[in-house]
Amino acid sequence: MAKDKAKELFNCTDSERAVFEAGIKLGGIYHQFIGATVTPENVAHLEKVIEEGARYQPFVESIEAHVDRTELRGKSDAYDYQTITGKMLRVRIVTHYGTARAVCELKWQSDLHYPLMYVKEVTKVKNGSTTVNKK
Amino acid sequence: MAKDKAKELFNCTDSERAVFEAGIKLGGIYHQFIGATVTPENVAHLEKVIEEGARYQPFVESIEAHVDRTELRGKSDAYDYQTITGKMLRVRIVTHYGTARAVCELKWQSDLHYPLMYVKEVTKVKNGSTTVNKK
Amino acid sequence: MAKDKAKELFNCTDSERAVFEAGIKLGGIYHQFIGATVTPENVAHLEKVIEEGARYQPFVESIEAHVDRTELRGKSDAYDYQTITGKMLRVRIVTHYGTARAVCELKWQSDLHYPLMYVKEVTKVKNGSTTVNKK
Amino acid sequence: MAKDKAKELFNCTDSERAVFEAGIKLGGIYHQFIGATVTPENVAHLEKVIEEGARYQPFVESIEAHVDRTELRGKSDAYDYQTITGKMLRVRIVTHYGTARAVCELKWQSDLHYPLMYVKEVTKVKNGSTTVNKK
Repeated sequence: MAKDKAKELFNCTDSERAVFEAGIKLGGIYHQFIGATVTPENVAHLEKVIEEGARYQPFVESIEAHVDRTELRGKSDAYDYQTITGKMLRVRIVTHYGTARAVCELKWQSDLHYPLMYVKEVTKVKNGSTTVNKK
Repeated sequence: MAKDKAKELFNCTDSERAVFEAGIKLGGIYHQFIGATVTPENVAHLEKVIEEGARYQPFVESIEAHVDRTELRGKSDAYDYQTITGKMLRVRIVTHYGTARAVCELKWQSDLHYPLMYVKEVTKVKNGSTTVNKK
Repeated sequence: MAKDKAKELFNCTDSERAVFEAGIKLGGIYHQFIGATVTPENVAHLEKVIEEGARYQPFVESIEAHVDRTELRGKSDAYDYQTITGKMLRVRIVTHYGTARAVCELKWQSDLHYPLMYVKEVTKVKNGSTTVNKK
Repeated sequence: MAKDKAKELFNCTDSERAVFEAGIKLGGIYHQFIGATVTPENVAHLEKVIEEGARYQPFVESIEAHVDRTELRGKSDAYDYQTITGKMLRVRIVTHYGTARAVCELKWQSDLHYPLMYVKEVTKVKNGSTTVNKK
Protein backbone atom coordinates (compact mmCIF):
# COMPACT_ATOMS: atom_id res chain seq x y z
CA MET A 1 0.00 0.00 0.00
CA ALA A 2 1.45 3.31 -1.11
CA LYS A 3 1.77 6.15 1.35
CA ASP A 4 -0.16 9.28 0.44
CA LYS A 5 2.39 12.00 1.13
CA ALA A 6 -0.20 14.76 0.72
CA LYS A 7 -2.79 13.17 3.00
CA GLU A 8 -2.63 15.88 5.68
CA LEU A 9 -3.77 18.54 3.22
CA PHE A 10 -7.07 16.77 2.57
CA ASN A 11 -10.10 17.07 4.80
CA CYS A 12 -12.59 14.66 3.30
CA THR A 13 -13.74 11.07 3.28
CA ASP A 14 -12.20 8.37 1.11
CA SER A 15 -15.22 8.38 -1.20
CA GLU A 16 -15.06 12.15 -1.61
CA ARG A 17 -11.39 11.80 -2.38
CA ALA A 18 -12.02 9.11 -4.99
CA VAL A 19 -14.57 11.22 -6.90
CA PHE A 20 -12.40 14.35 -6.54
CA GLU A 21 -9.47 12.55 -8.18
CA ALA A 22 -11.74 11.33 -10.97
CA GLY A 23 -13.08 14.85 -11.54
CA ILE A 24 -9.55 16.25 -11.85
CA LYS A 25 -8.63 13.69 -14.50
CA LEU A 26 -11.82 14.13 -16.55
CA GLY A 27 -11.58 17.93 -16.49
CA GLY A 28 -7.92 17.76 -17.38
CA ILE A 29 -8.36 15.33 -20.28
CA TYR A 30 -11.13 17.43 -21.74
CA HIS A 31 -9.25 20.72 -21.68
CA GLN A 32 -5.93 19.21 -22.74
CA PHE A 33 -7.16 17.40 -25.82
CA ILE A 34 -10.05 19.52 -27.10
CA GLY A 35 -8.71 21.19 -30.22
CA ALA A 36 -6.18 18.47 -31.07
CA THR A 37 -6.24 17.35 -34.68
CA VAL A 38 -8.03 14.03 -35.05
CA THR A 39 -7.98 11.92 -38.19
CA PRO A 40 -8.89 8.36 -39.14
CA GLU A 41 -5.15 7.67 -38.89
CA ASN A 42 -4.32 9.04 -35.46
CA VAL A 43 -7.56 8.39 -33.60
CA ALA A 44 -6.49 5.07 -32.09
CA HIS A 45 -3.17 6.52 -30.95
CA LEU A 46 -4.96 9.51 -29.45
CA GLU A 47 -7.10 7.20 -27.34
CA LYS A 48 -3.97 5.41 -26.12
CA VAL A 49 -2.21 8.68 -25.26
CA ILE A 50 -5.17 9.71 -23.11
CA GLU A 51 -5.47 6.30 -21.43
CA GLU A 52 -1.78 5.69 -20.83
CA GLY A 53 -1.30 9.24 -19.57
CA ALA A 54 -4.17 9.11 -17.09
CA ARG A 55 -3.21 5.67 -15.84
CA TYR A 56 0.02 7.16 -14.60
CA GLN A 57 -1.71 9.80 -12.50
CA PRO A 58 -2.50 9.46 -8.80
CA PHE A 59 -5.16 6.95 -7.71
CA VAL A 60 -6.33 5.89 -11.16
CA GLU A 61 -7.25 2.23 -11.26
CA SER A 62 -8.34 2.04 -14.88
CA ILE A 63 -9.46 4.24 -17.75
CA GLU A 64 -10.99 3.81 -21.19
CA ALA A 65 -11.08 6.66 -23.70
CA HIS A 66 -13.07 6.44 -26.89
CA VAL A 67 -13.38 8.84 -29.81
CA ASP A 68 -16.53 8.35 -31.85
CA ARG A 69 -15.41 7.32 -35.37
CA THR A 70 -18.82 8.10 -36.85
CA GLU A 71 -18.05 11.78 -36.22
CA LEU A 72 -14.90 11.53 -38.37
CA ARG A 73 -15.59 12.52 -41.95
CA GLY A 74 -13.31 12.06 -44.92
CA LYS A 75 -11.13 14.92 -46.14
CA SER A 76 -13.04 16.95 -48.73
CA ASP A 77 -10.31 19.44 -49.66
CA ALA A 78 -6.82 20.63 -48.73
CA TYR A 79 -8.04 22.58 -45.72
CA ASP A 80 -10.46 20.06 -44.36
CA TYR A 81 -9.56 18.39 -41.10
CA GLN A 82 -11.18 17.95 -37.73
CA THR A 83 -10.27 18.62 -34.14
CA ILE A 84 -11.53 16.84 -31.03
CA THR A 85 -14.81 18.22 -29.71
CA GLY A 86 -16.92 17.37 -26.69
CA LYS A 87 -19.33 15.54 -28.95
CA MET A 88 -16.73 12.97 -29.96
CA LEU A 89 -15.07 12.07 -26.71
CA ARG A 90 -16.18 9.41 -24.24
CA VAL A 91 -14.16 8.50 -21.17
CA ARG A 92 -14.75 6.08 -18.30
CA ILE A 93 -12.39 6.26 -15.35
CA VAL A 94 -12.14 4.22 -12.17
CA THR A 95 -10.34 5.72 -9.19
CA HIS A 96 -9.55 4.04 -5.89
CA TYR A 97 -8.66 5.70 -2.64
CA GLY A 98 -8.51 3.90 0.68
CA THR A 99 -11.89 2.31 1.28
CA ALA A 100 -13.60 3.79 -1.77
CA ARG A 101 -13.75 3.19 -5.50
CA ALA A 102 -15.44 5.62 -7.90
CA VAL A 103 -16.56 5.04 -11.47
CA CYS A 104 -16.98 8.31 -13.37
CA GLU A 105 -17.68 9.10 -16.99
CA LEU A 106 -17.49 11.84 -19.57
CA LYS A 107 -20.17 11.46 -22.22
CA TRP A 108 -21.93 13.78 -24.60
CA GLN A 109 -25.58 14.28 -23.63
CA SER A 110 -27.50 15.08 -26.77
CA ASP A 111 -30.55 16.33 -24.85
CA LEU A 112 -28.42 18.69 -22.73
CA HIS A 113 -26.08 19.59 -25.62
CA TYR A 114 -23.34 19.13 -23.10
CA PRO A 115 -20.29 16.88 -22.60
CA LEU A 116 -21.34 15.81 -19.11
CA MET A 117 -18.91 14.44 -16.55
CA TYR A 118 -20.78 12.41 -13.94
CA VAL A 119 -20.35 10.01 -11.03
CA LYS A 120 -21.75 6.66 -12.06
CA GLU A 121 -20.99 4.70 -8.94
CA VAL A 122 -19.17 4.96 -5.63
CA THR A 123 -18.48 1.69 -3.84
CA LYS A 124 -16.88 0.51 -0.64
CA VAL A 125 -13.61 -1.38 -1.02
CA LYS A 126 -13.04 -4.15 1.48
CA ASN A 127 -9.34 -4.34 2.04
CA GLY A 128 -8.79 -0.63 2.13
CA SER A 129 -5.60 -0.67 0.10
CA THR A 130 -5.02 2.31 -2.14
CA THR A 131 -4.31 1.87 -5.81
CA VAL A 132 -1.65 4.44 -6.51
CA ASN A 133 -1.82 3.63 -10.17
CA LYS A 134 -1.44 0.63 -12.42
CA LYS A 135 2.28 1.01 -13.08
CA MET B 1 -33.28 26.81 -6.68
CA ALA B 2 -32.19 25.65 -10.09
CA LYS B 3 -33.20 22.25 -11.36
CA ASP B 4 -30.34 19.88 -12.08
CA LYS B 5 -31.34 18.40 -15.42
CA ALA B 6 -28.60 15.76 -15.28
CA LYS B 7 -29.37 14.58 -11.73
CA GLU B 8 -30.51 11.12 -12.72
CA LEU B 9 -27.10 10.29 -14.19
CA PHE B 10 -25.36 10.78 -10.84
CA ASN B 11 -25.20 8.16 -8.13
CA CYS B 12 -23.51 9.91 -5.26
CA THR B 13 -24.11 12.09 -2.24
CA ASP B 14 -24.29 15.88 -2.37
CA SER B 15 -20.86 16.22 -0.78
CA GLU B 16 -19.32 13.81 -3.30
CA ARG B 17 -20.97 15.82 -6.03
CA ALA B 18 -19.60 19.11 -4.70
CA VAL B 19 -15.99 17.85 -4.62
CA PHE B 20 -16.39 16.16 -8.02
CA GLU B 21 -17.47 19.46 -9.58
CA ALA B 22 -14.52 21.22 -7.95
CA GLY B 23 -12.11 18.57 -9.23
CA ILE B 24 -13.40 18.99 -12.79
CA LYS B 25 -12.83 22.75 -12.70
CA LEU B 26 -9.34 22.55 -11.17
CA GLY B 27 -8.20 19.86 -13.62
CA GLY B 28 -9.69 21.82 -16.50
CA ILE B 29 -8.12 25.15 -15.53
CA TYR B 30 -4.72 23.56 -15.15
CA HIS B 31 -4.69 21.82 -18.53
CA GLN B 32 -6.33 24.71 -20.39
CA PHE B 33 -3.96 27.44 -19.25
CA ILE B 34 -0.62 25.68 -18.74
CA GLY B 35 1.53 26.83 -21.63
CA ALA B 36 -0.22 30.18 -22.12
CA THR B 37 2.11 33.15 -22.42
CA VAL B 38 2.22 35.11 -19.18
CA THR B 39 3.81 38.54 -18.84
CA PRO B 40 3.78 41.34 -16.27
CA GLU B 41 1.23 43.00 -18.58
CA ASN B 42 -1.31 40.22 -19.07
CA VAL B 43 -1.09 38.44 -15.73
CA ALA B 44 -3.98 40.29 -14.09
CA HIS B 45 -6.21 39.72 -17.11
CA LEU B 46 -5.26 36.05 -17.15
CA GLU B 47 -6.44 35.68 -13.56
CA LYS B 48 -9.73 37.31 -14.47
CA VAL B 49 -10.24 35.07 -17.51
CA ILE B 50 -9.80 32.00 -15.32
CA GLU B 51 -12.07 33.32 -12.57
CA GLU B 52 -14.83 34.70 -14.77
CA GLY B 53 -14.80 31.58 -16.92
CA ALA B 54 -15.06 29.15 -13.99
CA ARG B 55 -17.74 31.20 -12.27
CA TYR B 56 -19.97 30.51 -15.24
CA GLN B 57 -19.63 26.75 -14.93
CA PRO B 58 -22.04 24.49 -13.09
CA PHE B 59 -22.23 24.69 -9.28
CA VAL B 60 -19.37 27.12 -8.75
CA GLU B 61 -20.05 29.50 -5.88
CA SER B 62 -16.79 31.42 -5.98
CA ILE B 63 -13.26 31.19 -7.29
CA GLU B 64 -9.98 33.03 -6.87
CA ALA B 65 -7.07 32.48 -9.23
CA HIS B 66 -3.65 33.87 -8.53
CA VAL B 67 -0.45 33.79 -10.57
CA ASP B 68 2.70 34.28 -8.51
CA ARG B 69 4.32 37.53 -9.74
CA THR B 70 7.62 36.65 -8.08
CA GLU B 71 8.00 33.91 -10.70
CA LEU B 72 7.73 36.49 -13.51
CA ARG B 73 11.14 37.70 -14.59
CA GLY B 74 11.89 40.63 -16.87
CA LYS B 75 12.55 40.08 -20.55
CA SER B 76 16.26 39.50 -21.09
CA ASP B 77 16.28 39.28 -24.90
CA ALA B 78 14.02 39.07 -27.96
CA TYR B 79 13.16 35.42 -27.36
CA ASP B 80 12.66 35.56 -23.66
CA TYR B 81 9.13 35.12 -22.40
CA GLN B 82 7.38 32.81 -19.97
CA THR B 83 4.44 30.48 -20.02
CA ILE B 84 2.20 29.44 -17.15
CA THR B 85 3.57 26.52 -15.15
CA GLY B 86 2.22 24.57 -12.19
CA LYS B 87 4.65 26.39 -9.93
CA MET B 88 3.01 29.77 -10.60
CA LEU B 89 -0.66 29.01 -10.38
CA ARG B 90 -2.80 29.05 -7.24
CA VAL B 91 -6.57 28.54 -7.33
CA ARG B 92 -9.20 28.36 -4.62
CA ILE B 93 -12.67 27.26 -5.65
CA VAL B 94 -15.90 26.89 -3.69
CA THR B 95 -18.61 24.66 -5.09
CA HIS B 96 -22.10 24.16 -3.75
CA TYR B 97 -24.45 21.29 -4.49
CA GLY B 98 -27.63 20.64 -2.56
CA THR B 99 -26.72 20.24 1.10
CA ALA B 100 -22.95 20.42 0.62
CA ARG B 101 -20.30 23.03 0.05
CA ALA B 102 -16.70 22.16 -0.87
CA VAL B 103 -13.61 24.33 -0.70
CA CYS B 104 -10.82 22.99 -2.90
CA GLU B 105 -7.46 24.37 -3.88
CA LEU B 106 -4.69 24.02 -6.41
CA LYS B 107 -1.33 24.97 -4.95
CA TRP B 108 2.27 24.12 -5.71
CA GLN B 109 3.79 21.91 -3.02
CA SER B 110 7.50 22.55 -2.96
CA ASP B 111 8.23 19.43 -0.89
CA LEU B 112 6.27 17.21 -3.30
CA HIS B 113 7.39 19.11 -6.42
CA TYR B 114 3.80 18.90 -7.48
CA PRO B 115 0.91 21.28 -8.23
CA LEU B 116 -1.45 19.57 -5.82
CA MET B 117 -5.22 19.83 -6.05
CA TYR B 118 -6.80 19.07 -2.70
CA VAL B 119 -10.05 19.18 -0.76
CA LYS B 120 -9.65 21.72 2.02
CA GLU B 121 -13.10 21.50 3.53
CA VAL B 122 -16.51 19.96 2.97
CA THR B 123 -19.36 21.47 4.93
CA LYS B 124 -23.08 20.94 5.36
CA VAL B 125 -25.31 23.68 3.94
CA LYS B 126 -28.45 24.40 5.93
CA ASN B 127 -31.02 25.50 3.43
CA GLY B 128 -30.09 22.96 0.81
CA SER B 129 -30.43 25.31 -2.13
CA THR B 130 -28.07 24.72 -5.00
CA THR B 131 -25.90 27.49 -6.31
CA VAL B 132 -25.98 27.00 -10.04
CA ASN B 133 -23.45 29.76 -10.47
CA LYS B 134 -23.03 33.38 -9.57
CA LYS B 135 -24.54 34.83 -12.73
CA MET C 1 18.00 47.52 -32.88
CA ALA C 2 17.91 44.24 -30.99
CA LYS C 3 20.36 41.49 -31.81
CA ASP C 4 18.81 38.25 -33.00
CA LYS C 5 20.74 35.67 -31.01
CA ALA C 6 19.28 32.78 -33.01
CA LYS C 7 19.98 34.29 -36.44
CA GLU C 8 22.53 31.68 -37.48
CA LEU C 9 19.96 28.90 -37.25
CA PHE C 10 17.74 30.48 -39.89
CA ASN C 11 18.27 30.12 -43.60
CA CYS C 12 15.66 32.38 -45.15
CA THR C 13 14.92 35.91 -46.23
CA ASP C 14 13.62 38.61 -43.91
CA SER C 15 10.16 38.41 -45.46
CA GLU C 16 10.05 34.63 -45.02
CA ARG C 17 11.12 35.15 -41.43
CA ALA C 18 8.39 37.72 -40.80
CA VAL C 19 5.59 35.43 -42.08
CA PHE C 20 7.08 32.42 -40.27
CA GLU C 21 6.97 34.31 -36.97
CA ALA C 22 3.37 35.34 -37.65
CA GLY C 23 2.40 31.75 -38.47
CA ILE C 24 3.86 30.50 -35.18
CA LYS C 25 1.86 33.02 -33.18
CA LEU C 26 -1.43 32.39 -34.98
CA GLY C 27 -1.09 28.61 -34.71
CA GLY C 28 -0.14 28.94 -31.06
CA ILE C 29 -3.01 31.25 -30.13
CA TYR C 30 -5.51 28.99 -31.80
CA HIS C 31 -4.41 25.80 -30.10
CA GLN C 32 -3.81 27.43 -26.71
CA PHE C 33 -7.19 29.09 -26.37
CA ILE C 34 -9.60 26.80 -28.25
CA GLY C 35 -11.63 25.11 -25.54
CA ALA C 36 -11.30 27.91 -22.97
CA THR C 37 -14.56 28.94 -21.33
CA VAL C 38 -15.86 32.17 -22.82
CA THR C 39 -18.71 34.18 -21.33
CA PRO C 40 -20.13 37.68 -21.78
CA GLU C 41 -18.15 38.54 -18.63
CA ASN C 42 -14.69 37.29 -19.48
CA VAL C 43 -14.63 37.84 -23.25
CA ALA C 44 -12.93 41.26 -23.11
CA HIS C 45 -10.30 39.98 -20.70
CA LEU C 46 -9.70 36.97 -22.91
CA GLU C 47 -8.96 39.24 -25.87
CA LYS C 48 -6.49 41.18 -23.75
CA VAL C 49 -4.75 38.03 -22.53
CA ILE C 50 -4.22 36.93 -26.13
CA GLU C 51 -3.04 40.36 -27.27
CA GLU C 52 -0.79 41.16 -24.34
CA GLY C 53 0.72 37.67 -24.41
CA ALA C 54 1.52 37.72 -28.14
CA ARG C 55 2.91 41.25 -27.98
CA TYR C 56 5.60 39.92 -25.69
CA GLN C 57 6.73 37.27 -28.15
CA PRO C 58 9.59 37.67 -30.62
CA PHE C 59 9.18 40.10 -33.53
CA VAL C 60 5.55 41.00 -32.95
CA GLU C 61 4.86 44.63 -33.78
CA SER C 62 1.15 44.66 -33.05
CA ILE C 63 -1.81 42.34 -32.59
CA GLU C 64 -5.55 42.60 -32.31
CA ALA C 65 -7.69 39.69 -31.12
CA HIS C 66 -11.44 39.74 -31.35
CA VAL C 67 -14.05 37.25 -30.17
CA ASP C 68 -17.37 37.55 -31.96
CA ARG C 69 -19.97 38.54 -29.32
CA THR C 70 -22.85 37.56 -31.60
CA GLU C 71 -21.76 33.95 -31.13
CA LEU C 72 -22.17 34.25 -27.35
CA ARG C 73 -25.59 33.15 -26.22
CA GLY C 74 -27.13 33.65 -22.81
CA LYS C 75 -27.05 30.86 -20.24
CA SER C 76 -30.12 28.66 -20.61
CA ASP C 77 -29.53 26.29 -17.68
CA ALA C 78 -26.98 25.29 -15.04
CA TYR C 79 -24.85 23.34 -17.52
CA ASP C 80 -24.93 25.80 -20.35
CA TYR C 81 -21.71 27.59 -21.15
CA GLN C 82 -19.54 28.03 -24.19
CA THR C 83 -15.93 27.49 -25.11
CA ILE C 84 -13.88 29.30 -27.73
CA THR C 85 -14.23 27.83 -31.23
CA GLY C 86 -12.62 28.68 -34.54
CA LYS C 87 -15.85 30.33 -35.63
CA MET C 88 -15.60 32.99 -32.91
CA LEU C 89 -11.99 34.04 -33.04
CA ARG C 90 -10.47 36.72 -35.27
CA VAL C 91 -6.84 37.78 -34.99
CA ARG C 92 -4.72 40.26 -36.93
CA ILE C 93 -1.00 40.25 -36.27
CA VAL C 94 1.82 42.40 -37.62
CA THR C 95 5.36 41.06 -37.42
CA HIS C 96 8.55 42.85 -38.32
CA TYR C 97 11.91 41.31 -39.06
CA GLY C 98 14.81 43.24 -40.56
CA THR C 99 13.65 44.68 -43.87
CA ALA C 100 10.23 43.05 -43.89
CA ARG C 101 6.87 43.53 -42.26
CA ALA C 102 4.05 40.97 -42.52
CA VAL C 103 0.36 41.40 -41.82
CA CYS C 104 -1.35 38.06 -41.20
CA GLU C 105 -4.84 37.15 -40.06
CA LEU C 106 -6.88 34.35 -38.58
CA LYS C 107 -10.50 34.56 -39.67
CA TRP C 108 -13.33 32.08 -40.02
CA GLN C 109 -14.21 31.46 -43.67
CA SER C 110 -17.83 30.50 -43.84
CA ASP C 111 -17.53 29.17 -47.40
CA LEU C 112 -14.57 26.96 -46.49
CA HIS C 113 -15.94 26.08 -43.03
CA TYR C 114 -12.44 26.73 -41.82
CA PRO C 115 -10.65 29.12 -39.45
CA LEU C 116 -8.14 30.24 -42.08
CA MET C 117 -4.79 31.76 -41.22
CA TYR C 118 -3.49 33.78 -44.15
CA VAL C 119 -0.84 36.27 -45.23
CA LYS C 120 -2.57 39.54 -46.05
CA GLU C 121 0.46 41.62 -46.93
CA VAL C 122 4.23 41.53 -46.91
CA THR C 123 5.98 44.87 -47.24
CA LYS C 124 9.52 46.21 -47.39
CA VAL C 125 10.64 48.22 -44.38
CA LYS C 126 12.99 51.10 -45.14
CA ASN C 127 15.23 51.44 -42.15
CA GLY C 128 15.73 47.76 -41.65
CA SER C 129 15.47 47.90 -37.88
CA THR C 130 13.92 44.88 -36.20
CA THR C 131 11.04 45.26 -33.83
CA VAL C 132 11.80 42.78 -31.12
CA ASN C 133 8.48 43.51 -29.55
CA LYS C 134 6.57 46.48 -28.20
CA LYS C 135 7.82 46.23 -24.64
CA MET D 1 -2.49 19.04 -58.21
CA ALA D 2 -4.98 20.20 -55.64
CA LYS D 3 -6.70 23.53 -56.04
CA ASP D 4 -6.07 25.98 -53.24
CA LYS D 5 -9.55 27.32 -52.56
CA ALA D 6 -8.24 30.07 -50.28
CA LYS D 7 -5.54 31.29 -52.69
CA GLU D 8 -7.11 34.68 -53.29
CA LEU D 9 -6.81 35.62 -49.63
CA PHE D 10 -3.04 35.29 -49.70
CA ASN D 11 -0.69 37.99 -50.90
CA CYS D 12 2.72 36.39 -50.76
CA THR D 13 5.18 34.26 -52.66
CA ASP D 14 5.15 30.47 -52.68
CA SER D 15 8.19 30.34 -50.40
CA GLU D 16 6.61 32.73 -47.91
CA ARG D 17 3.51 30.58 -48.00
CA ALA D 18 5.49 27.40 -47.35
CA VAL D 19 7.22 28.81 -44.25
CA PHE D 20 3.97 30.40 -43.02
CA GLU D 21 2.24 27.01 -43.14
CA ALA D 22 5.15 25.43 -41.28
CA GLY D 23 5.05 28.15 -38.61
CA ILE D 24 1.33 27.57 -38.04
CA LYS D 25 1.86 23.86 -37.49
CA LEU D 26 4.85 24.24 -35.17
CA GLY D 27 3.13 26.90 -33.06
CA GLY D 28 -0.01 24.80 -32.93
CA ILE D 29 1.73 21.58 -31.93
CA TYR D 30 3.62 23.33 -29.17
CA HIS D 31 0.60 24.98 -27.58
CA GLN D 32 -1.69 21.97 -28.05
CA PHE D 33 0.57 19.40 -26.43
CA ILE D 34 2.52 21.31 -23.79
CA GLY D 35 1.07 20.18 -20.50
CA ALA D 36 -0.05 16.74 -21.71
CA THR D 37 0.93 13.88 -19.44
CA VAL D 38 3.91 11.99 -20.82
CA THR D 39 5.12 8.67 -19.52
CA PRO D 40 7.49 5.94 -20.67
CA GLU D 41 4.34 4.10 -21.76
CA ASN D 42 2.57 6.74 -23.85
CA VAL D 43 5.53 8.63 -25.28
CA ALA D 44 5.67 6.69 -28.56
CA HIS D 45 1.93 7.08 -29.08
CA LEU D 46 2.16 10.79 -28.35
CA GLU D 47 4.74 11.19 -31.10
CA LYS D 48 2.45 9.38 -33.51
CA VAL D 49 -0.56 11.52 -32.56
CA ILE D 50 1.44 14.66 -33.32
CA GLU D 51 2.83 13.32 -36.59
CA GLU D 52 -0.36 11.77 -37.91
CA GLY D 53 -2.37 14.83 -36.95
CA ALA D 54 -0.04 17.32 -38.65
CA ARG D 55 0.29 15.19 -41.75
CA TYR D 56 -3.41 15.69 -42.33
CA GLN D 57 -3.16 19.47 -42.27
CA PRO D 58 -2.78 21.68 -45.34
CA PHE D 59 0.47 21.57 -47.32
CA VAL D 60 2.41 19.29 -45.00
CA GLU D 61 4.72 16.97 -46.89
CA SER D 62 6.27 15.20 -43.94
CA ILE D 63 6.80 15.54 -40.21
CA GLU D 64 8.81 13.88 -37.49
CA ALA D 65 8.10 14.49 -33.81
CA HIS D 66 10.42 13.28 -31.10
CA VAL D 67 10.14 13.43 -27.32
CA ASP D 68 13.47 13.14 -25.53
CA ARG D 69 13.31 9.95 -23.43
CA THR D 70 16.30 11.01 -21.36
CA GLU D 71 14.07 13.70 -19.85
CA LEU D 72 11.59 11.03 -18.67
CA ARG D 73 12.30 9.96 -15.12
CA GLY D 74 10.79 7.01 -13.30
CA LYS D 75 7.85 7.47 -10.96
CA SER D 76 9.12 8.20 -7.44
CA ASP D 77 5.78 8.33 -5.62
CA ALA D 78 2.01 8.35 -6.15
CA TYR D 79 1.96 11.98 -7.29
CA ASP D 80 4.97 11.93 -9.51
CA TYR D 81 4.37 12.24 -13.22
CA GLN D 82 5.57 14.52 -15.99
CA THR D 83 4.01 16.70 -18.62
CA ILE D 84 5.43 17.72 -21.98
CA THR D 85 7.71 20.76 -21.80
CA GLY D 86 9.57 22.72 -24.46
CA LYS D 87 12.79 21.08 -23.36
CA MET D 88 11.57 17.62 -24.37
CA LEU D 89 9.98 18.20 -27.73
CA ARG D 90 11.73 18.16 -31.10
CA VAL D 91 9.82 18.48 -34.37
CA ARG D 92 10.94 18.63 -37.99
CA ILE D 93 8.34 19.53 -40.60
CA VAL D 94 8.50 19.81 -44.38
CA THR D 95 5.88 21.89 -46.15
CA HIS D 96 5.37 22.27 -49.87
CA TYR D 97 3.47 24.99 -51.64
CA GLY D 98 3.62 25.57 -55.39
CA THR D 99 7.24 26.12 -56.33
CA ALA D 100 8.62 26.09 -52.79
CA ARG D 101 9.49 23.58 -50.12
CA ALA D 102 10.37 24.58 -46.56
CA VAL D 103 12.10 22.56 -43.86
CA CYS D 104 11.44 23.97 -40.41
CA GLU D 105 12.24 22.71 -36.93
CA LEU D 106 11.31 23.12 -33.30
CA LYS D 107 14.25 22.36 -31.03
CA TRP D 108 15.25 23.35 -27.53
CA GLN D 109 18.24 25.70 -27.54
CA SER D 110 20.09 25.23 -24.29
CA ASP D 111 22.10 28.45 -24.72
CA LEU D 112 18.93 30.50 -25.33
CA HIS D 113 16.84 28.55 -22.81
CA TYR D 114 14.20 28.59 -25.47
CA PRO D 115 12.26 26.06 -27.58
CA LEU D 116 13.18 27.73 -30.87
CA MET D 117 11.17 27.27 -34.05
CA TYR D 118 13.34 28.06 -37.06
CA VAL D 119 13.51 27.86 -40.85
CA LYS D 120 16.25 25.41 -41.75
CA GLU D 121 15.93 25.53 -45.51
CA VAL D 122 13.72 26.90 -48.28
CA THR D 123 14.17 25.30 -51.69
CA LYS D 124 12.74 25.68 -55.15
CA VAL D 125 10.57 22.83 -56.39
CA LYS D 126 10.81 22.06 -60.09
CA ASN D 127 7.44 20.81 -61.12
CA GLY D 128 5.46 23.31 -59.11
CA SER D 129 2.85 20.83 -57.95
CA THR D 130 1.43 21.43 -54.50
CA THR D 131 1.46 18.72 -51.89
CA VAL D 132 -1.89 19.08 -50.20
CA ASN D 133 -0.90 16.45 -47.72
CA LYS D 134 0.27 12.87 -47.70
CA LYS D 135 -3.14 11.25 -47.45
